[in-house]
Order: sequence, then structure tokens, then C-alpha cells
Amino acid sequence: MKSTFIRRFATLRPEIVTKSFPGPVSKSISKDISEIQEDRAHQFIVDYGKSSGNYIVDADGNTLLDAFAQIASIAIGYNNPALIELAKSEEFITAAINRPALGNFPPSNWKQILEDGLLKKTPKGLEQLFTAMCGSCANESAYKAVFMAYRDKHHGTGFSEEELKSCMQNAAPGSPEYSILSFESAFHGRLFGSLSTTRSKAIHKIGVPAFDWPQVAWPAVKYPLEEYGDYNRAAEAKSLELVRQTIREHKTKKPVAALVVEPIQSEGGDNHASADFFRGLREITKEEGVYMIVDEVQTGFGATGSFWAHDKWNLETPPDIVTFSKKAQAAGFYHNFDLRPSLPYRNFNTWMGDPIRALQAREMIKYIDNHNLVKHTEDVGEFIYTSLKNLSGNTPIENVRGWKQGTFISFDMPTSQGRDLVVSSMRARGVNIGGCGERAVRLRPMLIFGKEEAGILLDTLRKVIADI
Amino acid sequence: MKSTFIRRFATLRPEIVTKSFPGPVSKSISKDISEIQEDRAHQFIVDYGKSSGNYIVDADGNTLLDAFAQIASIAIGYNNPALIELAKSEEFITAAINRPALGNFPPSNWKQILEDGLLKKTPKGLEQLFTAMCGSCANESAYKAVFMAYRDKHHGTGFSEEELKSCMQNAAPGSPEYSILSFESAFHGRLFGSLSTTRSKAIHKIGVPAFDWPQVAWPAVKYPLEEYGDYNRAAEAKSLELVRQTIREHKTKKPVAALVVEPIQSEGGDNHASADFFRGLREITKEEGVYMIVDEVQTGFGATGSFWAHDKWNLETPPDIVTFSKKAQAAGFYHNFDLRPSLPYRNFNTWMGDPIRALQAREMIKYIDNHNLVKHTEDVGEFIYTSLKNLSGNTPIENVRGWKQGTFISFDMPTSQGRDLVVSSMRARGVNIGGCGERAVRLRPMLIFGKEEAGILLDTLRKVIADI
Repeated sequence: MKSTFIRRFATLRPEIVTKSFPGPVSKSISKDISEIQEDRAHQFIVDYGKSSGNYIVDADGNTLLDAFAQIASIAIGYNNPALIELAKSEEFITAAINRPALGNFPPSNWKQILEDGLLKKTPKGLEQLFTAMCGSCANESAYKAVFMAYRDKHHGTGFSEEELKSCMQNAAPGSPEYSILSFESAFHGRLFGSLSTTRSKAIHKIGVPAFDWPQVAWPAVKYPLEEYGDYNRAAEAKSLELVRQTIREHKTKKPVAALVVEPIQSEGGDNHASADFFRGLREITKEEGVYMIVDEVQTGFGATGSFWAHDKWNLETPPDIVTFSKKAQAAGFYHNFDLRPSLPYRNFNTWMGDPIRALQAREMIKYIDNHNLVKHTEDVGEFIYTSLKNLSGNTPIENVRGWKQGTFISFDMPTSQGRDLVVSSMRARGVNIGGCGERAVRLRPMLIFGKEEAGILLDTLRKVIADI
Repeated sequence: MKSTFIRRFATLRPEIVTKSFPGPVSKSISKDISEIQEDRAHQFIVDYGKSSGNYIVDADGNTLLDAFAQIASIAIGYNNPALIELAKSEEFITAAINRPALGNFPPSNWKQILEDGLLKKTPKGLEQLFTAMCGSCANESAYKAVFMAYRDKHHGTGFSEEELKSCMQNAAPGSPEYSILSFESAFHGRLFGSLSTTRSKAIHKIGVPAFDWPQVAWPAVKYPLEEYGDYNRAAEAKSLELVRQTIREHKTKKPVAALVVEPIQSEGGDNHASADFFRGLREITKEEGVYMIVDEVQTGFGATGSFWAHDKWNLETPPDIVTFSKKAQAAGFYHNFDLRPSLPYRNFNTWMGDPIRALQAREMIKYIDNHNLVKHTEDVGEFIYTSLKNLSGNTPIENVRGWKQGTFISFDMPTSQGRDLVVSSMRARGVNIGGCGERAVRLRPMLIFGKEEAGILLDTLRKVIADI
């Protein structure tokens, strides 16, 4: 499998040429940038022109195997020849330099771009597509859609004088006291609406005003999920009961218009739950008249071994909304007609997404399908998971998770410091990985990550663990 | 002036070839799109490949002089040769297909891109640049920056246990009850934080939960501003007094961390005020310890005859933040070091802006400077304004405004229906313009709009007004 496409990229291997990592050039460029912009979150400075496929080359000439991929945002490799070809096309250039106000003046090929691309991957049971600029924008536009629909469902499509007047004062009933229910340790974005549903870390939230919206504890499952069946079922039942209770308690004071949930809580620590749990959520939200938003910003686009992570849940009725961004490069949400607002300009903005990102999504989808990369990712994921499980018996590695979730795999180190040391030591040995939650290491490789790359990753990890 | 650069574009002129406007192909494509996306705000469908300079070509082959420019978002013309060249460059292609998580893994040329571009236009007195994805994102990231800084100013950079805990519950003190003060009829964006400061129209706000943040009436000035000196001074004084009063009243219950203001309220109806008014705002915010955010998303990048509209105010101390997007293609805000958060990852997200849009901004800035387009826009604006003033004496056109504001010009029709009729009749005669507020027609041409184009616009307007 791998050989059919990997060979089209330049052949690289991990190689750290500097005495320490990041090297002096990275550090010096970061310092330069610090004069005009925040630099303290820089990991290293990149030479994107030299990066290729699974490999990222830094400003010092170090080459790293990249299993983090711009926070899970590169799908088919750096400088993929298919994307280079696209970028050189008249279609792409025209779209890049004549960015339209899509809601007012769409290009004549707009629907075709979507039909050949993003609409090919419309989640089962959905048919409409709202395009946006980024993951936070996608989630917030989805929240707006459910708020509007929830209002109309309960009060009809006409507006009262009082509503028209009060909304200009940011007051009820025009600006209703509705809420979005999210989970503890969830991450749904960083703007004011999305941040109000984000519950990952204090550093993400402190000092920023937030809506008084409810949250429910994520089920306190044990890993591996399949080995703790009874225990986890009880934990999930408890969480589901809390969801129902919270929705009911809020009905009179601050109605829950929608529940938002990640298939795997990513930023918050790679927290999993069973397909049964998500089916339960769908059942409860249906019964209680609450919309269900599945946030696939990080899980979507193949990384979990199915195109959408929620494909694996076998839902009887689809979620009301599925949001996406990151690997898709494009962003937005899928929905059905009932979530299209009653009037134009209600859920609107200047750009309404970006055609060049929709073109890239189209090209990536074609590439993913042609190379069977979703199945490939499932296979490679099984190999990595099994190897990590074997490793976890004799090392501080614990809570390996992501079985049957493609390469969306993670594990815990005993402490936060231990985790940070693993991440930095891996980088110093030429493998870029990421952290999440309190003490988790997360793998977010691209879909072209093969068994050969997995072997390098695992070998390096073994060495790093032996060293510390 | 014009001839040196207009000649580089294809030569077009307004030509409507369909019996009605929009034509049958536009209508049919809109109907197609309506199967999967909102279409009711479509004005017409565009063939961007055929559009050139100031002229937009639609899917039916109609050619329109475009004085609306994608809601004020095209600076130097459709298919500008300079932007085509850029799009073909390796630098652009590399940036387009390897989109980085800029806050973690910036490209080695990142600072240089900014120094050769956006930083050349850093507003006087500012030095730092936060990059973002869109206008709403720019404003919301700016709001986050002022909230964090306001908190730290009053409570120090350390966090209490109570803050760390309560912010995870979306509750004070961790999620503080701070506010942003905005003006009636303001428009600052469509996401949850920005929408809470937007007060333009009910359709933008109704059904969406909002923060209970204060607003103050925009000064009830009469136009032309310069002819009603005393009257307007009194109106502005009243508004300024209300600003001070509102800030003081909120000090104990919901402190105002920042005031946000557009130099010209655009979406809300092209509402102007004098430079004295803005100097007054700067004085009051300084005195009351409130940050001042100038929202130049629509006014920035030369359209008002200065690069930033607020350049004309001659402030003694600069605004704390200037936000931008639209014509810049890039988005974000300028600020000083005091508004950089105490810790990394506080004001952070995956993309942190988009390098290709920063490259386009760089290229446009070079083009604008080389062709002296800001001065050009000032001259063309004076010509348009004077002509419209002459026209207003004998026609229903009233409240012509935008004297010495470049081509950022508008006028009222007696009714909302009359305004809509002017806009649609102008389009049917091959000139694309926009509406705003209740009954205003707004001109938002590109910076390459010349006297020749202005002549066509004015001639067409004369005919339309004569007809109705």
C-alpha cells in the first residue's frame, strides 16, 4: 500500500543535526518573532519548502518524523504533489486572488466544487453544508443555527415586537436565555461561544467572560475500554443520566438547545467512550427535544479509521450537526434542511468559508479515496496500538487508548512532567508528537503514515522510555 | 495616474446582455446551490475568471462596474496581475498547501513576510501584531486580549484557586463579569462575543444568546458634518457624556474592559462623527482606565483616503487596538506589548491566521504604495462626493456623506424601498453597489477605482434616479 504513494515524496528520515533541540536557528528566529508576536508556544521553526510527506524539516536542517502534523491538521503529507498541481491550476489561482463574499456573489463552479469534494463525504443522514473559516467559527455557526431553530420550533417563525426590540439590547426574549450543554474536559474552540463550551484547561478560559451554560462529567471509564465492559457501562449510564437530568433541570430557566460532543475528547486528554454511550446521547437528545452536535474538528477526515469518527456508532438517527475543520483545511458543518434559518442573513457573514480550502478538501478526498487511506489508517493504527499495549506492560506507559480508532492513539505517563519529557525527548530524537490533557501523549499522524513510519516512532519511543 | 495601472487589466465596460437582472443562468445556478446551501442572499453568480480590475462578470456574461467589491473586500482589482504572479510563486504555493499551526510551528520566513507587508502599515504608536482568520475572529481575539489585560491590571498576573476553579464552571471570578461597550447601530461581527457588540439590525441578532453588555447611542449628527458644526458638537458631547456615565455606572457591576468603535459605522448605515468625537473617546477611555479598540475591518486599507481611517483623528495617544480584515485579506489586530497575555496559550488557536493571506497583504501593500493608491482614492472620493452633492439638490438623494473620507461615500434615499430600488436598478444597468442601514446606499469601490469609473457610476445613477 504505502509504496504506491510514499515514493512520490522526497525520501527523508529522522535526523537531528544540532547539539540540542530546538537548534540555534529556531531559537534565534523565535526570538526575532517575539519582538512583534507571542513566541512562547513555539515548538520549533519550520522550513516548509523542504518538508515532505510525513517529514518536517526545521530551520536548522533537522528532519523530524511528524506524528503531530500541525495539531492534527495535515492529511496527506507536506508538499503532496497532488496539492502542488492543484495550487498551480488556474482554478485555484482564480479562487485564491478573487476571494468572494460567498453568500452574496458565489462563483459559478461553487456547487460543483462541493459536489466533487466535501459533499462526497456528507455524513449519513445529512445533506446540507454550511461553510466557515475555522473550527471555532464552524462550531459557533452551528450553535447559532441550533439556537435559531430551537427558538422557531418553540415560538414560530414570526418575531414579536418585544423580541425585535429586546434583541437590540442583548436581552430576552430577543436574545434568549438558551444554552449549549457540553462535557467536562471538552474542547470546542476559543471564541466566546465555543469557549463557553470548552472545559479543557483553566489557561484556555481564565479571565474571559463566559455564558453560564451547563456541563456534565465525561464518563469515568477505564482503559482499555473493552476490558472494563461492566465498569464502563455503569460509568456511561451515570453520565447519560446526568445529561438527561441537566437538560430537564434547565428547561424552565435556561433551556438546552443542543448538546455538543467530541467523538474522542482530544485537547482535553484523549478521553474515549463506547458507541453505546453515543447512541444513548442521541436517544436522550431526541427524547428531550435537544439538537445533537458532533464536533469532528479533530476526529474527522479519516484519522480514526473511518471517515467520520461517529460512523462507528451505528446511530439509528443521524446527529443534527457534524462540524469539521483542521485536516479538511476547509471548515463548516453538515446538517439537514430543518436547521437552515427561516430568513437569509440570519446566519451569515462576509466570507462564508473559503473556496480555495474547499478545492483543497476536494483534492484531498480524491487522494484519500484513490489510495484507500482510511482503511490504511485503520490498519496502521491497529499495529501501533498493539505495539504500544505490549510496551505498556514493562514501562511507565499506561492507559493506551484508541483501539479500533485508526491512528487516533494516545497513552498516559504517570505525571505531567514525565509526559513533557517524553514529548521533548522524542523531538530531540527526531520524532514530533504532542501532548494533551494532564499527562497524555497523543499521536496525530497524517493519513499517509505507514507501518515503516510507525516502526520508527515505536523504536524511538522505546529508546526514550529506556533513557528516562 | 489611472492609465499607469488600469491598462494592465483587461478592458471592460458595463454591459447587461440579459433581459432581466440577474439573468437566467445566475438564477438557475442559485437554485442548484439552494439544494445544499442558503441561496436567498445571492445577488448574482460570478465568473471570477473573466472578471478584471473594477469589473465583475456574471455567469450570464453580464459585465458590471463593481463599486461594492465583495462587501468592501477587494483592494486592487479582480485578477490583478501582481496577485497572479504571487499566486504562481513557490513561496505562495508552499504556504498554501502546508498550512501551519502558526503559534507552534511558524515558517522561517514568517517575520519577514510581516515586515515586508502588514508591519509596514502598523498604525502610529503600535508595534505588535496578532493574526487571525476573519474580521469576527480578529475582534473576538482583541476582546480576549483586553479582558485578560484588564483582569491582570486589577488582580495581578497570578491566579487564585477560586479563579482557576470557577472559570471551569463559566462563573466569576474566573470567568469575570466584564463587558465591552459598543455603540448603537455598530457592527463588529457575527460570532457570540462580536455579535454581543453588534447592534446594527435585529435580523443579525434575534434568537441568539448574547452577553448583557452596554451600548451608547451614536451621536445624532446631521450631514454634511461640516455644515452643522454647532449642532453636531452638541450631539457628540451628549454621546461622549453617555460613554463616560455608562463606564462609571458599570464599574461595580459589570466593568467595561474596552470600548469598541468603527471610524465610520458601515453595516449600520454609514454613520459618521468628527475627529473631535474620537479624540474625546480616547480621552475618556484613558481617564476611566478602559481600553479603546478601533474596528477598522471595513474602513482600513486605504478606502477612506488614509491607510487607516483613524489616521485622520490626530490622536495624542494611539488606540490600544486596531483590528482589520476584508480588503487586507489577512485579519488580526495591532496592539502594544501591554496587551500580550501574561502566559502563552491564553490567547491561542490552531491556525493563528493564514500565511497566504499575509503574503497577499504584503503584495497589495506594495502595489498600493507603488501606485499611490491611497492618495488616488482621496482624489477620486472628492470628485464623487462633490458630484453627489450637486445631484442631491434636485433629486431624492439626501444626506450625502463621506467628505474627505476617500471613496467611503454614501447617501440616503427617502425610504428603504427607494434605496432597494436604486441598488437593483443600478445593477440592472451594469453598476454594482450596496445598501446599508435603513435606507442608505453605500459605495465601497476598490482602491483602483478612477475618475473614469466614477463618471460611469454617476451617469448611471443620474439615469436611475430620473427613471424612478
